[in-house]
Amino acid sequence: MLTGLSAFPLTPMNEQGIHEHEFTRLVTRLAEAEVDSIGVLGSTGNYAYLNSDERARVVKLSVESAAKVPVIAGIGALRTRDVLINAEHAQQAGASGVLLAPVSYQKLTDEEVFSLYETVCRSLSVPLCVYDNPGTTHFQFSDELHGRIAQLPQVRSIKIPPVQNDLTAAKARVAGLRALIPSDVTIGISGDAAAATGLLAGCDAWYSVIGGLYPDIALALTRAAQAGDTEQAMARSQALEPLWVLYRDYGGSLRVAATIAELTGKVSQPCLPQPLNTLQGEARERVKVVVETLL
Amino acid sequence: MLTGLSAFPLTPMNEQGIHEHEFTRLVTRLAEAEVDSIGVLGSTGNYAYLNSDERARVVKLSVESAAKVPVIAGIGALRTRDVLINAEHAQQAGASGVLLAPVSYQKLTDEEVFSLYETVCRSLSVPLCVYDNPGTTHFQFSDELHGRIAQLPQVRSIKIPPVQNDLTAAKARVAGLRALIPSDVTIGISGDAAAATGLLAGCDAWYSVIGGLYPDIALALTRAAQAGDTEQAMARSQALEPLWVLYRDYGGSLRVAATIAELTGKVSQPCLPQPLNTLQGEARERVKVVVETLL
Repeated sequence: MLTGLSAFPLTPMNEQGIHEHEFTRLVTRLAEAEVDSIGVLGSTGNYAYLNSDERARVVKLSVESAAKVPVIAGIGALRTRDVLINAEHAQQAGASGVLLAPVSYQKLTDEEVFSLYETVCRSLSVPLCVYDNPGTTHFQFSDELHGRIAQLPQVRSIKIPPVQNDLTAAKARVAGLRALIPSDVTIGISGDAAAATGLLAGCDAWYSVIGGLYPDIALALTRAAQAGDTEQAMARSQALEPLWVLYRDYGGSLRVAATIAELTGKVSQPCLPQPLNTLQGEARERVKVVVETLL
Repeated sequence: MLTGLSAFPLTPMNEQGIHEHEFTRLVTRLAEAEVDSIGVLGSTGNYAYLNSDERARVVKLSVESAAKVPVIAGIGALRTRDVLINAEHAQQAGASGVLLAPVSYQKLTDEEVFSLYETVCRSLSVPLCVYDNPGTTHFQFSDELHGRIAQLPQVRSIKIPPVQNDLTAAKARVAGLRALIPSDVTIGISGDAAAATGLLAGCDAWYSVIGGLYPDIALALTRAAQAGDTEQAMARSQALEPLWVLYRDYGGSLRVAATIAELTGKVSQPCLPQPLNTLQGEARERVKVVVETLL
């Protein structure tokens, strides 16, 4: 389940609540495209900005709309107590797996993070994916800590940050981590711009933002890489370079993806929780050009 | 109100809830010592780990126990919606002021942060203190942004991160910020180790962690600095150097203060929300020695 293309949809919302119909439509589109899994309530799904009732509701809606595609639900929260509640809700709603990042306000120690995963795993009957995203959690996993956490029987995948562009360096990075974890724990790449390199370097999955909006584009890249077609996979990624430039210029993928979704009418505007905003002005114009020429 | 010593108590808790009796005792002690204000639900009070009902309850308990000392309540949250709820609750519970940090999961832009303060200020009838703490919020205020936010009529203080040890450099830093903000907006220093230097450099307030446990020690330092007694203020800070070393060695003041509170029976153990833990083993022994020799 935690291999291939895992597509991460937005959770469109405004200050009054979640746009359930729009969200359901996004998930249905992913199910129709037959992505390998649907990752709801990831960073792209703004999990950190929703309360536990809203998150339970989002998982329920996803499972109802995902047809046979497994749903993986983000359960991260600052407090272990809340992670456990989210885990319980996600399982009750029918999620096939959960995704957990060590979200922090106070900087966490390695022991605290290990203990978080240990505690949460004890309450789980579905697989867990470790979500390593230092850009939002401000926690830096060592490979040694990844190795320890990956021994927990519920842990079945690690979602790693972008690998280097250089394929040899990327292969070494993936192999280094692989050597420290059980053979049935998959490694998934995140950071869309690094997806082709990551998959070609030996990652088993792509945890994809753009796949949440354009599953066919992300599937084509994924399938090429899975077939070992280096040239095609790289070409498909390079063709999307203007999109990766937007990610780099505007602080990551979230605001770009949300702006694309607004511009293409997939969601209504605004779609992000305040204080977050989609791109406006010149930045929005740049996104518009990329949508028109590329997507 | 936002001058002198503002003492920040812990919010003792475990996985079942807040230890209300212990919290009330901490606040009562601060009121008896006649600190200038009590800052509840700061980083030391673990505001980020509590839900809005718990936070409302904490403010209510504080106001009831603070006698005539004004209570300032932290209202920060990832989402503007939740900040507004916390602001409303804090005001209803009788807080004399609020403290707001731009908490983030997704990195915030300057415009988003300005808009957060603007929106929240519109709903406030009490003064607001801007909480600038890049170590936990991962947002870096520019002085230009501080200047813009400080123009909002409800903004009456800025809680700044530690200044440099060097008094001349610290004076330049405080003067530089002062030049950009209205004259009735105070500047308060945080980072206990920088308190003496900060106050002597022209800060109007000390937002103090150790003052939340040992108000007399913090008051003596504050009053010396306020009287312009450089020598005494610096001596009092230097005498606490072994404590500042613990802060530096153990990732800031929170875990050290919480460990001190446990060791001295001011709170029961555990007192921090999981996954956070107080210091154990050798680190705890070091804290014990400092408590026995210094406090």
